[in-house]
Amino acid sequence: MSEKESPVARTVLQQCLRASLMVKPAEEGSEAEYVQIDRGMVIYICFFKGATDEILPKMGHESSSGKIVSILDLPGSLLIVPQATLGGKAKGKAMQYHNNINKEDGLRLYEAFVALCEKELEAKENVVIKHGTYGNRQVLKLDTNGPYTHMMEF
Amino acid sequence: MSEKESPVARTVLQQCLRASLMVKPAEEGSEAEYVQIDRGMVIYICFFKGATDEILPKMGHESSSGKIVSILDLPGSLLIVPQATLGGKAKGKAMQYHNNINKEDGLRLYEAFVALCEKELEAKENVVIKHGTYGNRQVLKLDTNGPYTHMMEF
Repeated sequence: MSEKESPVARTVLQQCLRASLMVKPAEEGSEAEYVQIDRGMVIYICFFKGATDEILPKMGHESSSGKIVSILDLPGSLLIVPQATLGGKAKGKAMQYHNNINKEDGLRLYEAFVALCEKELEAKENVVIKHGTYGNRQVLKLDTNGPYTHMMEF
Repeated sequence: MSEKESPVARTVLQQCLRASLMVKPAEEGSEAEYVQIDRGMVIYICFFKGATDEILPKMGHESSSGKIVSILDLPGSLLIVPQATLGGKAKGKAMQYHNNINKEDGLRLYEAFVALCEKELEAKENVVIKHGTYGNRQVLKLDTNGPYTHMMEF
C-alpha cells in the first residue's frame, strides 16, 4: 500500500464484549430484527470512488491489513457495518461525501467483502460473523471493555 | 488545513443516544465510577507527534472542523474519549504507534482540549460534557440509532 495514493476504502475497527445491530426495523405486525456478536470486533467500512474487487483480498489478507488478519486469526467474532459516513470530509459546518463510491458499486463491494470474510471464518469454531444491511440506518449497541478504536485505509 | 501535510491529530466521531464510560475501576471497598451522556456525540481523540496547542482551537472552532462546530452548536452532549490506538499504523500483523505523541504532551493537549470544550459549552442549557481519563482503559458502552461514524484529521 502506497501512502501517497488516495485510499479507496476506509475502515474503523472497535473491539467489543458484545455488539448488536438492527437489520430490520419494526413494522406493524413484526418486531425489529437484530444480529449480535459477543467478544470480537466491529468493523465499519466505507468504499471510495475507484475501489474495485482487487482491494477486498488486501483488506482481508495482506500483511498490510494488520488488524483484519488478526481478527481472522483470533477466536473472536466479527460484526461488519456499512458506514458511508466514514467517507465524509468537512466543508464548512457540513460534511460532504463527494468521494464516496456510488451505491450500486458500494453495495456490490460490501457484499463481496462480507462473503470473503464468511468464507475465511466458516471453518473456525466459536466464531460468528454478522453484518449490517447496506443502505440501512445502522442502529447499533456496543459494549466494550476498551474499544481500542483503530482506523485503517486501503 | 492542507491535505498534503501530515495530520497532528485524528478524531473519530460517533453519534449516540446514550454513552457511558468508566473513569475509575472498581477497587476493594469502592465501586467503579462512570460518566454518562444521553443524546449527543462521542469523540475519540489522538494526537500525533508535532501537535501543539495551536491545533486545539482548530479542532473546536474553525470552519474546517465541521462536525465539532455542529456539536458545539447543537443541543447535544459530548463525551470525549482519549484513544491513543487511533494513531496506529498496520505493520505486518501488528499495529505500531511510532507517530503518536509522547504521554506527557498527549495528556496536556487532551486536558486542554477538554477545558476548551467545557468553556464553550458551559453556557448552554441541557448540554453536558463528560470525558475519560487519559491513560485509562476506556471501558465504554454505546447505544446509538445510527453511529454515523466520521473520521477527521487536523
